[in-house]
Amino acid sequence: MKVEQIETAVEEIHPQVIAWRRHLHAHPELSFEEVETSAYVVEQLQVMEGIEVTRPTKTSVVGRLKGLAGAGKTIAMRADMDALPIQEDVDEPYRSKNDSVMHACGHDGHTSMLLGVAKVLSDARENLVGEYVFLFQHAEEVPPGGAIEMVRAGVLNGVDHVLGMHLWSIEKLGKMQLTVGPMSAASDIFDVKIIGKSGHASAPDDAIDALAIAAQIVSNLQMIVSRSLSPLQSGVLSITRFRSGEAYNVIPQEATFGGSVRALTEEVRETIKEKIEQISDMVAKAHGATIEFHYEYGYDPVYNDETLMPIVEKTLRQFEDLEIEYIEPMLGGEDFSAFSNVVPSCYIGVGALKERDGKYYPHHHPKFEIHEDAFKNGMRYFLSVATTLAQQ
Amino acid sequence: MKVEQIETAVEEIHPQVIAWRRHLHAHPELSFEEVETSAYVVEQLQVMEGIEVTRPTKTSVVGRLKGLAGAGKTIAMRADMDALPIQEDVDEPYRSKNDSVMHACGHDGHTSMLLGVAKVLSDARENLVGEYVFLFQHAEEVPPGGAIEMVRAGVLNGVDHVLGMHLWSIEKLGKMQLTVGPMSAASDIFDVKIIGKSGHASAPDDAIDALAIAAQIVSNLQMIVSRSLSPLQSGVLSITRFRSGEAYNVIPQEATFGGSVRALTEEVRETIKEKIEQISDMVAKAHGATIEFHYEYGYDPVYNDETLMPIVEKTLRQFEDLEIEYIEPMLGGEDFSAFSNVVPSCYIGVGALKERDGKYYPHHHPKFEIHEDAFKNGMRYFLSVATTLAQQ
Amino acid sequence: MKVEQIETAVEEIHPQVIAWRRHLHAHPELSFEEVETSAYVVEQLQVMEGIEVTRPTKTSVVGRLKGLAGAGKTIAMRADMDALPIQEDVDEPYRSKNDSVMHACGHDGHTSMLLGVAKVLSDARENLVGEYVFLFQHAEEVPPGGAIEMVRAGVLNGVDHVLGMHLWSIEKLGKMQLTVGPMSAASDIFDVKIIGKSGHASAPDDAIDALAIAAQIVSNLQMIVSRSLSPLQSGVLSITRFRSGEAYNVIPQEATFGGSVRALTEEVRETIKEKIEQISDMVAKAHGATIEFHYEYGYDPVYNDETLMPIVEKTLRQFEDLEIEYIEPMLGGEDFSAFSNVVPSCYIGVGALKERDGKYYPHHHPKFEIHEDAFKNGMRYFLSVATTLAQQ
Amino acid sequence: MKVEQIETAVEEIHPQVIAWRRHLHAHPELSFEEVETSAYVVEQLQVMEGIEVTRPTKTSVVGRLKGLAGAGKTIAMRADMDALPIQEDVDEPYRSKNDSVMHACGHDGHTSMLLGVAKVLSDARENLVGEYVFLFQHAEEVPPGGAIEMVRAGVLNGVDHVLGMHLWSIEKLGKMQLTVGPMSAASDIFDVKIIGKSGHASAPDDAIDALAIAAQIVSNLQMIVSRSLSPLQSGVLSITRFRSGEAYNVIPQEATFGGSVRALTEEVRETIKEKIEQISDMVAKAHGATIEFHYEYGYDPVYNDETLMPIVEKTLRQFEDLEIEYIEPMLGGEDFSAFSNVVPSCYIGVGALKERDGKYYPHHHPKFEIHEDAFKNGMRYFLSVATTLAQQ
Repeated sequence: MKVEQIETAVEEIHPQVIAWRRHLHAHPELSFEEVETSAYVVEQLQVMEGIEVTRPTKTSVVGRLKGLAGAGKTIAMRADMDALPIQEDVDEPYRSKNDSVMHACGHDGHTSMLLGVAKVLSDARENLVGEYVFLFQHAEEVPPGGAIEMVRAGVLNGVDHVLGMHLWSIEKLGKMQLTVGPMSAASDIFDVKIIGKSGHASAPDDAIDALAIAAQIVSNLQMIVSRSLSPLQSGVLSITRFRSGEAYNVIPQEATFGGSVRALTEEVRETIKEKIEQISDMVAKAHGATIEFHYEYGYDPVYNDETLMPIVEKTLRQFEDLEIEYIEPMLGGEDFSAFSNVVPSCYIGVGALKERDGKYYPHHHPKFEIHEDAFKNGMRYFLSVATTLAQQ
Repeated sequence: MKVEQIETAVEEIHPQVIAWRRHLHAHPELSFEEVETSAYVVEQLQVMEGIEVTRPTKTSVVGRLKGLAGAGKTIAMRADMDALPIQEDVDEPYRSKNDSVMHACGHDGHTSMLLGVAKVLSDARENLVGEYVFLFQHAEEVPPGGAIEMVRAGVLNGVDHVLGMHLWSIEKLGKMQLTVGPMSAASDIFDVKIIGKSGHASAPDDAIDALAIAAQIVSNLQMIVSRSLSPLQSGVLSITRFRSGEAYNVIPQEATFGGSVRALTEEVRETIKEKIEQISDMVAKAHGATIEFHYEYGYDPVYNDETLMPIVEKTLRQFEDLEIEYIEPMLGGEDFSAFSNVVPSCYIGVGALKERDGKYYPHHHPKFEIHEDAFKNGMRYFLSVATTLAQQ
Repeated sequence: MKVEQIETAVEEIHPQVIAWRRHLHAHPELSFEEVETSAYVVEQLQVMEGIEVTRPTKTSVVGRLKGLAGAGKTIAMRADMDALPIQEDVDEPYRSKNDSVMHACGHDGHTSMLLGVAKVLSDARENLVGEYVFLFQHAEEVPPGGAIEMVRAGVLNGVDHVLGMHLWSIEKLGKMQLTVGPMSAASDIFDVKIIGKSGHASAPDDAIDALAIAAQIVSNLQMIVSRSLSPLQSGVLSITRFRSGEAYNVIPQEATFGGSVRALTEEVRETIKEKIEQISDMVAKAHGATIEFHYEYGYDPVYNDETLMPIVEKTLRQFEDLEIEYIEPMLGGEDFSAFSNVVPSCYIGVGALKERDGKYYPHHHPKFEIHEDAFKNGMRYFLSVATTLAQQ
Repeated sequence: MKVEQIETAVEEIHPQVIAWRRHLHAHPELSFEEVETSAYVVEQLQVMEGIEVTRPTKTSVVGRLKGLAGAGKTIAMRADMDALPIQEDVDEPYRSKNDSVMHACGHDGHTSMLLGVAKVLSDARENLVGEYVFLFQHAEEVPPGGAIEMVRAGVLNGVDHVLGMHLWSIEKLGKMQLTVGPMSAASDIFDVKIIGKSGHASAPDDAIDALAIAAQIVSNLQMIVSRSLSPLQSGVLSITRFRSGEAYNVIPQEATFGGSVRALTEEVRETIKEKIEQISDMVAKAHGATIEFHYEYGYDPVYNDETLMPIVEKTLRQFEDLEIEYIEPMLGGEDFSAFSNVVPSCYIGVGALKERDGKYYPHHHPKFEIHEDAFKNGMRYFLSVATTLAQQ
């Protein structure tokens, strides 16, 4: 679609997108429980002409639309639909009606925008080439995530590229944030239990002091980042939990610690994982203790294809009021990786900062809010990039 | 009293002592709650001639008896009366009638023996010089302990020496264990809270990682015993509790650890205390954190007067079947120190091992039992040493 | 200059450049001792028409050439001239004639190329706008470096940009490596002396064990990189020296360790420096010791101006056989930073891998060799970019 | 011998003992090189009647004397003869004539006293029972020591007990220091080499940082004393040497540390040894490095037989001016253990403090001096205890 067409269509659909969003915002549902949300999405899609609606999993929805102007690539676009277990503290007519559940991450906006995009493309389908797939995904917030379930259900069959985006409440309206290569981090968690031998506090020689050993391990683990990773690579190991002992006069038999691993590459991720186990195991053995190691893989890194990004940039530059910037990867996790692991994909950030009384709030905050004008920019991205790629 | 007199008197009173003990064993009371126990002791003492009974604190009892054969020293003897919050698992007619309360440390035996000693001395008072004080102490098991309360109530006024003893369920009947100088350890507890700055697990540079700092401190604290104490001195620092963090993706703001300090001398005790605070404080500051330090003094070391011990040994050697041995100090705590801090005193161990089905159990065990014949040896000790010292 | 002109001129001058390089290679001189080298450079420059030769410092040389076609910007180009204290192990006619001195880093190539560039620009000066400055720099290998001396001597007066480059023996011929922003690391060194108290090995309590304290500090310092730097920033702290004690039975009074700091930004550099001092000081104090801290700033990061790099890339893309790639910054040090600190500059890498018997060697290796065809690519860079920038 | 006899004999021989001592002091010889010293001892012994002189090793001497009054036990007495590599700084007529060799530990006194004792017993042999063996030992100062060589040469054949003693320059004249059980420590040395992988300081991920690993090991080793030894046992592990790296920009491949182990029992000694190896090995492996471990056993603990000590005390108490005290074991090493390992033996300390200008100096000091009146006390010990034991 040409820029002018997009601009007109976006302006026209914008009030409807806002309406959808406010409805969704007032009726948030937790991850894997998006029953009403997905029914609502189905309801909207079903009245758009040319869109074939399917339900790949219980709470996800997929719409497929064929352009009628000829063959082309198949471009998927993804919106996540789940909300968070947070009590909303915003005084708006559309505030959450569900106690302790809130769209505090902007997924209501994502879903509404993608509905808007579907409607615009549906209306324009006579002049479109290629095929468009609308992925309304459940459960982004809770590993293992909904994306991998949708992929396993076959939603990427025949898909050439997937486009995704996130509204950011802390970035100015108009900003479009691009990254080449890894865009988000692998994000895993782990636990280590040190098993020593209990004893009386006055007789350490009869005990194997799991607590003191665990402390030594925590110190030794600092060397993973400081010594075993390249300074040019990004990896984080944060030990965030430590539990051992209760009574003052008993050397505890066990100590347990755990934490979080972030890495932008599989290599760094595996290095950190292997070293945690090796160092914990060996330092425990050094002092006569043993360990149990549990590692839980979280989301993979979202990867922005290097050949797609120049096209995305060029396409977005057609909208002169947008401020395009290249940014560092973020170390948070995002399950869009389940898509970008399969086909060359693109995931960008869209500024949506909304001040109220001179303040604004980060994601997952009870006072979180987004600027509804940002929906226009999100739709411009989907519409322009998807129709451009379909023609490649 | 002469050995023969003592032997005869002890044989005679022994069945009564057993009876007292079984009554007390069946009716145990927790520390500071020895209401019925102390009433029972008062009841027994009141019928002994020449004994003046007072109640220095709510649940303690003191009996004073003057020898009628002339002036002499005033010798106090002490028995502790409290039981433990343990559910007894012994099948005897005299098992505890009180749920989850048990005389699992032998204090029932201590109390009964001292009643027996009081009765024997009461009967022999015509021929005794000096004065005898029977200290029935409450609350030995729970700091700050009953002994210090009794001392503050003035029970040591005019007292020259205090004699104490402990029945040991793990030492053979007949053993009498002596120590010169420190006999038990100072036993204190402490807590250190490290206060850093919370942050997201993926952004350690925005946080001050209290958990990692605490782990470094625990490692640094090992150097107190390994480097700051003389190898010829005994001191223990056991860190037995460590709590920090909850969520996997949040670097915790705080970490708290605590534990136990044991030392046989005030110098070692103070060295350990000061170094814990100094090292914790400085290592925390090294990484930008601060600490809160809490130290709670427990019992002081029991101190066996060097000039008394040869007299005790010589006196006990008159009983030829007793096996006298000198032993290392114990690292457990005992609040008899409140007495030995004030007057030259003596505290010994008395073997009371009782096998059942080829097994025996340590103190504080649900199957704990003592050998009632050991009461004879305990009384021999009190009677012979007290009457000897009264004449010095 | 147009691409065709450059190609012709480079082909023509190439044999001369090789001859210059082989002469320089055979007569290497150490940093700050480039007496004959600089005299040789002066000799060559003096016969080139239009070049004004000056000697800003004892062993550096500057040539200035005015384009005669009109005003324009003043573009400096820099070559470093010093060799290394290495015994060459290469069997070529032009091998080093100076014992234990060797051009093992390719500076002979840099100097020769810049002479070639000077000659070409001298010949073309009728049609050039702007002004060209040829910086033949001494002492790149030894801090504080020759570049800063030349800057202080005023060689950048009136200069708009400086261009630099390095031949890489481990990168394929044809590769041109570009970086945006920091291109090399700050590279500093430090020493920490821990001062404790000596004592006999059997009496640690009379000593303050500097060695054990230093070991704790080294462990604590690991937390700088693992906890105090952003995972997205590059910083290195390597402790590479540790000395303490001699006799087996004497606890040493002192321990000294030192090492190297690398950082791509001033902020990271200062964070590392401050934390080394703070952690060393506080952990030493935790154990009763004191420290002496010595930090020596090395080269600053070379910074490639963001606005220059697109021009450089576009200019180089005119040479179709060149393979342009954007690379990560290198963590080595380079004193070109003394120039890039003053004016917007550009420093790139030029592939010069030369296999012999299937092998090739890294810089500073006794068998180091470079591919002389790479000189063409270096000259193409200087000539094309310098004449382009002169016209901006 | 009776006390009066001993007192008379000691007074008589004292001037001769001083003369012998001053000769030996002026002609000190290093360990294993006591050629002239041993020849001098032989010369003195040969003129004493009844003494059979043998040379069990190159520089040791043994004299044997049979009492002529009947059978009895065979009692050996030992004196060590070697000096130290120290330049004497005492201005006396008898100062060392040998450059950088000095009797700075009092062995000259030991040897002279034993000569005096031999002369007294030789003169008294008509009335003595039993047999007396005079062990003039070489090489006490340098492991593996001369004592073990003499034992292997059979000098203890038929010997029932060995008596030894040390003059202490820091203890008052008149003090006789006794210990029951372990009297000196096992004293061993060790070295650990950590083998990692060298690398550039800016690329820790390509290296295995032996220095940082060694520092972690040193910290982990602190836990041996703090956690693996009973607080009631004495053990020391002092790491006194650490070497690693040279260049600031090279991560060293190796790090070496070493130190000293002291223990009063074999069990503690072996625990420390095994833990050093285990902890070093495992912590190295935790980080991908390996170790080489070298442990050198030094002297065993000297052990004072429990049944001998009351006899020694009782015997010494006959000399009323002597001040007998029981002391803690010393953590220094002494190769008298080679004798006490074989037969029940006794080794005591003899005060010999000599003030000059209000000062006195410890052993191994260039200004070391002993009080020659202490020789009387040493001879009283040998003569009274040896003749008493011979009669048991």
